[in-house]
Amino acid sequence: GHSLAHAYGAAFDNPGLMVACVIGDGEAETGPLAASWHANKFLDPVHDGAVLPILHLNGYKIANPTVLARIPEHELDELLRGYGYAPRYVTGHDPAVMHQAMAAVLEDVHAEIRRIQDEARGGAQGHVRWPLIVLRSPKGWTGPSVVDGRPVEGTWRAHQVPLARVREDPEHLKALEAWLRSYRPEELFDANGGPRAGVTAVIPRGTRRMGANPHANGGLVLRPLPLPELASHTIDVTAPGVSGAEPTRVLGRYLRDLFSRDDDRRDFRLFGPDETASNRLDAVYEVTGKAWQARVEPVDEHLATDGRVVEVLSEHLCQGWLEGYLLTGRNGMFSCYEAFVHIVDSMVNQHIKWLRTARTIPWRRPVASLNYLLTSHVWRQDHNGFSHQDPGFIDHVANKSAEVVRVYLPPDTNTLLTVAEHCLRSRDYVNVIVAGKNETPNWLDPQQAALHCARGAGIWEWASTFPQREPDVVLACAGDAPTIEVLAAASLLREYLPGLAVRVVNVVDLMRLQPVTEHPHGMSDWEFDAVFTTDRPVIFAYHGYPWLIHRLAYQRTNHAEFHVRGYREHGTTTTPFDMLVLNDMDRFQLVIDVIDRTPGLSRTAGGVRQVMAETRQRHHHWIREHGEDLPEVRNWTWA
Amino acid sequence: GHSLAHAYGAAFDNPGLMVACVIGDGEAETGPLAASWHANKFLDPVHDGAVLPILHLNGYKIANPTVLARIPEHELDELLRGYGYAPRYVTGHDPAVMHQAMAAVLEDVHAEIRRIQDEARGGAQGHVRWPLIVLRSPKGWTGPSVVDGRPVEGTWRAHQVPLARVREDPEHLKALEAWLRSYRPEELFDANGGPRAGVTAVIPRGTRRMGANPHANGGLVLRPLPLPELASHTIDVTAPGVSGAEPTRVLGRYLRDLFSRDDDRRDFRLFGPDETASNRLDAVYEVTGKAWQARVEPVDEHLATDGRVVEVLSEHLCQGWLEGYLLTGRNGMFSCYEAFVHIVDSMVNQHIKWLRTARTIPWRRPVASLNYLLTSHVWRQDHNGFSHQDPGFIDHVANKSAEVVRVYLPPDTNTLLTVAEHCLRSRDYVNVIVAGKNETPNWLDPQQAALHCARGAGIWEWASTFPQREPDVVLACAGDAPTIEVLAAASLLREYLPGLAVRVVNVVDLMRLQPVTEHPHGMSDWEFDAVFTTDRPVIFAYHGYPWLIHRLAYQRTNHAEFHVRGYREHGTTTTPFDMLVLNDMDRFQLVIDVIDRTPGLSRTAGGVRQVMAETRQRHHHWIREHGEDLPEVRNWTWA
Repeated sequence: GHSLAHAYGAAFDNPGLMVACVIGDGEAETGPLAASWHANKFLDPVHDGAVLPILHLNGYKIANPTVLARIPEHELDELLRGYGYAPRYVTGHDPAVMHQAMAAVLEDVHAEIRRIQDEARGGAQGHVRWPLIVLRSPKGWTGPSVVDGRPVEGTWRAHQVPLARVREDPEHLKALEAWLRSYRPEELFDANGGPRAGVTAVIPRGTRRMGANPHANGGLVLRPLPLPELASHTIDVTAPGVSGAEPTRVLGRYLRDLFSRDDDRRDFRLFGPDETASNRLDAVYEVTGKAWQARVEPVDEHLATDGRVVEVLSEHLCQGWLEGYLLTGRNGMFSCYEAFVHIVDSMVNQHIKWLRTARTIPWRRPVASLNYLLTSHVWRQDHNGFSHQDPGFIDHVANKSAEVVRVYLPPDTNTLLTVAEHCLRSRDYVNVIVAGKNETPNWLDPQQAALHCARGAGIWEWASTFPQREPDVVLACAGDAPTIEVLAAASLLREYLPGLAVRVVNVVDLMRLQPVTEHPHGMSDWEFDAVFTTDRPVIFAYHGYPWLIHRLAYQRTNHAEFHVRGYREHGTTTTPFDMLVLNDMDRFQLVIDVIDRTPGLSRTAGGVRQVMAETRQRHHHWIREHGEDLPEVRNWTWA
Repeated sequence: GHSLAHAYGAAFDNPGLMVACVIGDGEAETGPLAASWHANKFLDPVHDGAVLPILHLNGYKIANPTVLARIPEHELDELLRGYGYAPRYVTGHDPAVMHQAMAAVLEDVHAEIRRIQDEARGGAQGHVRWPLIVLRSPKGWTGPSVVDGRPVEGTWRAHQVPLARVREDPEHLKALEAWLRSYRPEELFDANGGPRAGVTAVIPRGTRRMGANPHANGGLVLRPLPLPELASHTIDVTAPGVSGAEPTRVLGRYLRDLFSRDDDRRDFRLFGPDETASNRLDAVYEVTGKAWQARVEPVDEHLATDGRVVEVLSEHLCQGWLEGYLLTGRNGMFSCYEAFVHIVDSMVNQHIKWLRTARTIPWRRPVASLNYLLTSHVWRQDHNGFSHQDPGFIDHVANKSAEVVRVYLPPDTNTLLTVAEHCLRSRDYVNVIVAGKNETPNWLDPQQAALHCARGAGIWEWASTFPQREPDVVLACAGDAPTIEVLAAASLLREYLPGLAVRVVNVVDLMRLQPVTEHPHGMSDWEFDAVFTTDRPVIFAYHGYPWLIHRLAYQRTNHAEFHVRGYREHGTTTTPFDMLVLNDMDRFQLVIDVIDRTPGLSRTAGGVRQVMAETRQRHHHWIREHGEDLPEVRNWTWA
C-alpha cells in the first residue's frame, strides 16, 4: 500500500520525471493507499514531475474479490473523479487487443500530462485534473484457466500456486507444459536459449532500462547538501545552564538557511503531519511555503504551490513521500510528534529492511538517510495527555538491523544542531532524533557539543563532584528531560551529601551502550567500564521505557548495578514535573535511588532520604492546589 | 482517524442501533479514516445497525486548511458518492438557522435509514446507498472572531488557545468575558449556578443519555460466549511427538463450533486482512460466510451478506472494527500475519491506554479482551521472505501497561486450544497469541496442556535427562519453532553426551518471566529459581528478538547465565531450517551453546562440538544443492 505515496515522493522536485504507478486493487484497500490518492493536491505541475496512477483491477486478492472491482462502475468513476483525477478505462482479456488499447491510452495520457505541464509552466493557473488509468484484466491472465475442475484464471486462486502437484500428478504436469508452451518459446528464444533479435530489439537502451534508470538507484544522482555553517546557528554558552533556548526553534532557523542555500537545487524537503509550526520549526516559512495546490483563502498563511514543506494529517503519507524522495536521490527530514510516529512502524520496518538488503548489492549506491525529528515528546505533553505519551518508537527501531539504525537524544540546543547536521550528511541510515521544543538549559558550548556528540556518551566532569576520585555513584542520563533531572539531583547531592563523589554521564548516541559486537557504534568494554565503572551503582534516567537500557547494556560488566528510571506508562494530563514524579524519574526520587543503592549510604543519609520523600509529597499537594509545579522546581537552575 | 471504523464495529450485529459518527476533516486525511469509508460494503442492513457519517468540514486542522474543505464542491460530492453514500449538505454560520437545518436533515436521513432497513428486512435486495451528512460550519464557531487583530473564528487559529494571555493582557480578559457572556449564561443558569428547567428539560432520560447508553459501556451488555467443549477439539496424544497437527487448522474447527453455538446471538466475529484461509482457519466457512454487500460473481466462495467473518485488505479496518465491536459489548478475534500486525501498533497503543484508564473508572464494566492470533509467523515464511519476517509486535505490547497485556506462545495444538479458550473468556486484556499454521508435533495431551498453560512456564520432565538430579544445563524455549529446536537439541545431547543432566523448560505465558512486581503473571523469585536454577547456564531459544527475554528476566538471580537465541533480523526467502541457522537458533547451534556455556564441558566435548559445526556447514551446502532441508532435519522426530 505504499506505492502511490512513493510515486509522488519520486515526482516531487523532478519536473522531467513521469512516474507510472501500478496499484493493485488489493493494496488499494489499505489505509496508506486510500489516503495517497489525495497526494495530487500537493504536486506542483511546474516544479514537480507527474504521477500516472494505473489502478489495476484484476478483481481479487489472496482469497476474496476486491472492493473497487465490485462496486458499480459509475461509483468507481465518481470515486476517482472525486479524488481529482480524469480516469481512462482499459478493459478486456484478449492480450493482442489489450496491448493496443493500453498503448493508445498511454499515448493519450502522456500527451495530456505534457499539455498540463506546458500550460502550468507557461503560467496558467487553476485546477488541474491529472489523468489516471483503470486497467481491468483477469487475475492470473494467460495462466491456467481451469485446474482440477475449478476456475483459476480470473479468480483469486491465481494468487496461489496454480499447479501445486506437478511432481505427483501427471495432469498437473501436462497442464504446466501446455501453459508454458502457450507463450510460444520457440518464437522468443534461439537454439542456445538466448532471446531472439526481435525480442531484444524492443528492450530500451542504457538508462532507459528500468533497472538502470538513475531515479531507481537514487544514490547515482544524490549530491551532498549545501549545509549552512553550524557556527551561524549554535549558541554561545558561557557556563552550563546559565542560558536556555528552545532546541527545535533554533534547528528551524538552521533548516531555514538550508532551504535558502538549496533553493536552486530543490533536493531537500521537510515533511510533517500538520505539526511543523507546533514543533517550532516555523522559521522555515521565511524562505519557503507549504506545498498546496487546492483553493487558497485570504486568511491562509505560508501556502505555496512550490512549497518545500509538505504537511498533511497523515503520517503514512509523510513517510511514504519521504521514502520515495530519498530513494530517488534527494534529502529530507520528517518531524513528528513522538507518540504518533508509531503510525509508520510497519513502513519504517520495510525501509530498514530495504536499506539493509541494498547495502549488500554492489551496484546500489548509498542514498540519503531517513531522518526523524521526534519532538513534542512524552515528557512535555502539557495540555494533551496519556494518549500522546509513548516513547516506544526507539524500542521499535532498536530491534532492527544495527547497520542501519541510529538513535540520538541530544540534551540541549547545540547538541541537537550537531546531531542534525551529522544526520543530514549521513547515508543509508534511519536516524531517530528525539528532542524537545520547550525551553531547555544550554549545557554545552558549540565546541563541547561537537566533542560530546562525536564521543556519543561521556562523563560531564563539570557536573561531577571529586572528578579525580573514584566515584561513589554514577548518575547517567539520556534525553533532555532526564538530563535536567540528573543535574538537579546532582545539585541536591552537592547540597545534602557534599562528601559524595558523584559522576555525571550523558548519553547522546544511544547505541553507544551496546557492545561493539552488536552495533557499529558500540563502546568497547574497556571504555564502557571506564565511564560506568565496573562496580559502582549507576542511577540512569532515560527518556523512554527503562528496560531498553537493560536490553542494550545487559552484557556489560557492571550491568547488575544499573538502576534505570524512565517512562513506565504512567501518564495523564498534568504538570511537566508531575509526569516525572508519576514515573519515579524526578530529581528527588533519583536522590533517594542514590541513597538506596550506594553501599553504606543509607546508614547516614536516612534524614536526607526523608526530606526527598517529603518533597515529593509536598509536590503532590502543591500541584493540586496551584495547578503548576513547585516554585523550587520551576525556578531551579544549575548555575 | 479511528472514528468511522469504530462506528461500523459498533453497528455490526446491532440491528437496532444507529451510530452517528462525527468525522473531523483533519482526521479524514489519515489512512485509517480514508480506508474506512468503504466499510459500507461490509454492513448488512438486515442484521447490522446503521452508521450515519457526519463529515464535519470546519476547514482547518492545527495549522493548515484541510484537503476535503478545499477541493471543488462537485469533487467532494463525487468522492462521497463514489464511496457509495448519498450526501446531504448543511452549510452556514448562523447558529439558529443551522440548528434548524441540521435538525431537518437529521430527520430526513433518519427516515431514509429506516426505509433502507425496512426494505432490506422485508426481503428487498440490491445496492444500498446510505445517507451521509456534510456539515460545513466555521472552526471555533461562536468563539472570538478576531484576537490581536488576526481572525480566529473560521481559521486554524481556533485550534489553539484563542485567548492565551488573559492574566497579563486586559484586552484578552475583556474579550474572554465578552465571549463567555455571548452565551447568555443568565438564561442558562439559575442563581445557584444550576441549569434552569428549560435546559434540563431537553436532556434525554435514563439510558438515552449519551454517557448512560449501554452501548457506550459495553460491559453492561456483554454475555459470556457459548464456548464449545474443549474436549471435542483437543487431540489425543499417546506420547510426546508421535503425532502432529496444524495448530491453527484445529483452532479453526473450534471457532467453527463457536460460530454455530453463537448463531442466534451473533456476538462473536473473526476479523482478518484476507488471510483467514491462508491462516488455515477456513473450517469457519462451514457455518458462516464472509461479510460482503457488493456484487457477487458465480466464481465466489463463502461470501454472504450476513457473514460473521470480516475480511478486508486493511489491518487498520480489522483493528478498528474489532475495537468498536468489543467496546459495545461483543467478542472477537483478529487473525493476522505476524509481521504485518505492526500496521496497527499505534491503534493498539490507544486501545491499551483506554483499557488501562477504564479500569480505574468504577462505573465502567469490563469488556471482552482484544484477542490477536498472530500466525504465518517469522519462522515459516517459506515462499515469502525478509519483508514478512518480524516478531516485534510482542516487544511493542510488552512496553504497555502490565495490567492489560498478555502474551502467549503455545508450543503445539492442545496448548493453542487451551490458550485460545482462556483468552476468549477473559476481560479487559489485550491477548497476543503467536502460533504457527504448519504441521507441528503434538507434545502434550489435553490434560498436560491444561496444566502447562495454567502454570504458564514449567519443566518438561519427560524431555529432561536425570530429572531427579540438579541439572548441568537448562534448555528453555518459548514458541513452537524454538520448542522443536530445543527438543531436537535435547535428543542430540542424549545421543552425544548421555551423562549430561539436561532440564527442558517451556514457557507458554511469556509474562511469567517478569518479576511479580512488574506483571500480575510474574513468577515469584523462588519459583523462578526452582525452574531456571540460580547458577546453571540457561540456553534459551525464543520465538522473537532475543533481547526481550533479557529485558523480562534481568532482575532474576540467574540472569547472568541466560544465553538467548532468537530472531536477529537475519532473514530471506529460504528453507525453514535455514532461517534457524541464519539466526543461530538451530538445534546444532544450541548443542554448541550447551558445550560452550556448561562449565567444564568444552574440555571433553570438543569432538561433539565439531560434529555440530560441520553439520551446519553440511546444511549450508545441502540446501543450495537440493532446495530443501537435510533429511535428518526434515525427518527428525522426538519419538
